[in-house]
Amino acid sequence: MAEKRRILLVGAGGIGTMTAFNLEQGGLATVTAVLRSNYDVVKEKGFTIDSCDHGQIQGWRPTEVVKTIPHASPDHPYDYVICTTKNIPDIPPTIVDLIRPAITPGHSVIVLIQNGLNIEKPLHQAFPQNFVLSGVSLMGADELSPGEILQNDKDRLIIGPFLSPNLDTQAQIDSAQDFVHIYSTSGKVDCTYDADVLFVRWRKLMYNAVWNPICALTDLDTSRFRLASDPSDPASPLDLLVRPAMHEIRAAAKAAANVDLPESLVEAMVECDPIEIFCSPSMQQDRRKKRFIEYENLVGEALREGEKAGVGMPIVRTIYGLCKAVQWRTKETSGLVDAQKLMEQRKGR
Amino acid sequence: MAEKRRILLVGAGGIGTMTAFNLEQGGLATVTAVLRSNYDVVKEKGFTIDSCDHGQIQGWRPTEVVKTIPHASPDHPYDYVICTTKNIPDIPPTIVDLIRPAITPGHSVIVLIQNGLNIEKPLHQAFPQNFVLSGVSLMGADELSPGEILQNDKDRLIIGPFLSPNLDTQAQIDSAQDFVHIYSTSGKVDCTYDADVLFVRWRKLMYNAVWNPICALTDLDTSRFRLASDPSDPASPLDLLVRPAMHEIRAAAKAAANVDLPESLVEAMVECDPIEIFCSPSMQQDRRKKRFIEYENLVGEALREGEKAGVGMPIVRTIYGLCKAVQWRTKETSGLVDAQKLMEQRKGR
Repeated sequence: MAEKRRILLVGAGGIGTMTAFNLEQGGLATVTAVLRSNYDVVKEKGFTIDSCDHGQIQGWRPTEVVKTIPHASPDHPYDYVICTTKNIPDIPPTIVDLIRPAITPGHSVIVLIQNGLNIEKPLHQAFPQNFVLSGVSLMGADELSPGEILQNDKDRLIIGPFLSPNLDTQAQIDSAQDFVHIYSTSGKVDCTYDADVLFVRWRKLMYNAVWNPICALTDLDTSRFRLASDPSDPASPLDLLVRPAMHEIRAAAKAAANVDLPESLVEAMVECDPIEIFCSPSMQQDRRKKRFIEYENLVGEALREGEKAGVGMPIVRTIYGLCKAVQWRTKETSGLVDAQKLMEQRKGR
Repeated sequence: MAEKRRILLVGAGGIGTMTAFNLEQGGLATVTAVLRSNYDVVKEKGFTIDSCDHGQIQGWRPTEVVKTIPHASPDHPYDYVICTTKNIPDIPPTIVDLIRPAITPGHSVIVLIQNGLNIEKPLHQAFPQNFVLSGVSLMGADELSPGEILQNDKDRLIIGPFLSPNLDTQAQIDSAQDFVHIYSTSGKVDCTYDADVLFVRWRKLMYNAVWNPICALTDLDTSRFRLASDPSDPASPLDLLVRPAMHEIRAAAKAAANVDLPESLVEAMVECDPIEIFCSPSMQQDRRKKRFIEYENLVGEALREGEKAGVGMPIVRTIYGLCKAVQWRTKETSGLVDAQKLMEQRKGR
């Protein structure tokens, strides 16, 4: 067996922590985790984990925990750099700037366990000699308080290569399959290789480009939204918004990427959350917490790809515009823009 | 001069109170005001008014204040019944049910100082022998605390008859002109007669069907929304949402009512709020306060009229769907629907 892979994990919230735990359980990896808000508590007491896959764990720490992105050592480069942060390209720092010190050109494989489209592009551009892998996670995990993780939905991870035309294709595929191997050896999770990265990502966008922003804008979870839609009302919110927006995404996937998402996926995605759990998609949770929302990769890229391919997407476009305004407001409350100053500049013109 | 008109005013918030005050200042009317949340404080201390039209007033009360809608007296019927409440037909009680006891058939003229389309229809149906007038107010007035009124924008009121084909046309026009007369005698306000009720209402919908729900959904006031739109961004929120939605309303007005709203109105309505006042439209304020929103008459009726006339209105339709979901949530927090019970019914099916 090869030496253990050295892995850097950036973003140790719910999904990131479970990812790190599972990798170390498998025995083929040592994980250095970059922690931010939970650094102190994890340094002192470790993580407290309640996991449907792994059980109850007290006081667990990855092999190493650090506060900031480490610089890659020439002798001990990171084999994999896994990003499980949110991906919000409109708010600095970008993922590229964040991980740059840890990347060894031509060696480190970057694994983006993040949603949305075109997220590999800035990485291919910044690190043209490095492989980039797509990770689409269907796990449900939250950090309830700093260092306290609840995983209440099985870890299913779909890995594939974001193929760069400038690098050896088979080597990119091999690295994706190696990652699946080291992720699967714990025996507790469901990690699969899927070469059709675009299909996997567009399929998840049926949910993420629609439910996420709609729940964020209305502050209804997916169960309440369905309950608010009286089946006898021909102008129910589901019929006005969710179903036709999902059809817009299907049409965009077909026109932009030749991805065939079957029509039956619409009802499957409408009903995919068990109605008794009142699931709040992450974007709704972020808006409630007045955090930045991942609307560019989840909504904006789908819209731009679809419209570039000639697809009319009026509902997704409207939702995108509303999200853009919401994000601006969060920029203001975060001190990134100053409404008073901008107003005075406008008046002065 | 005729005897003073007996007027019943329903809805003594900011606009209602200033309406009552101005009518009594004119000397041609005695006003009975129906108060709800501010009844006790007004009964005890009167209204405190800070008005750009009338100055500072302490301890003012209309001729009579009551807690509930009075029954019309056969000997002293109300000449006018003015409604300045919000008009929310999807939430009981309806305006018709509310004012029914006070209406003397064939005598009381109903004045709806409310926004939106088709608001006269249930009144014409319920009171076929009574005239109904359209009042569109451009006043800015708020109730800062119970009984404390700030009017910071001039009272401009446009009156016209909601003509009923079953009643004498000239008599309906005369009653509208009589109301303009008694409203104008204070000399402090700008009250005009305009026979073209549909033009006046659709023009105001350019603002109300667009800015109101968009600000409510994003929680940006109109100034911030404009500041969030970088003029160099071709996909700015103004260009994605506000301008094209206003064009949808223009198209609907033309197709549904043959109302010509000039194209220049779009920029005028985009910029009509002085940017330094950071104006929050009423629907934004209502959502912040978790109150019901007037989305059916402001957005829904414009959408239904436009679509019935064959106009595609995808942005307004999307906004309408989002508002419908928001209203459902307010119904839940108000105890009108029970999500848990509904969920169990759905599961049981």
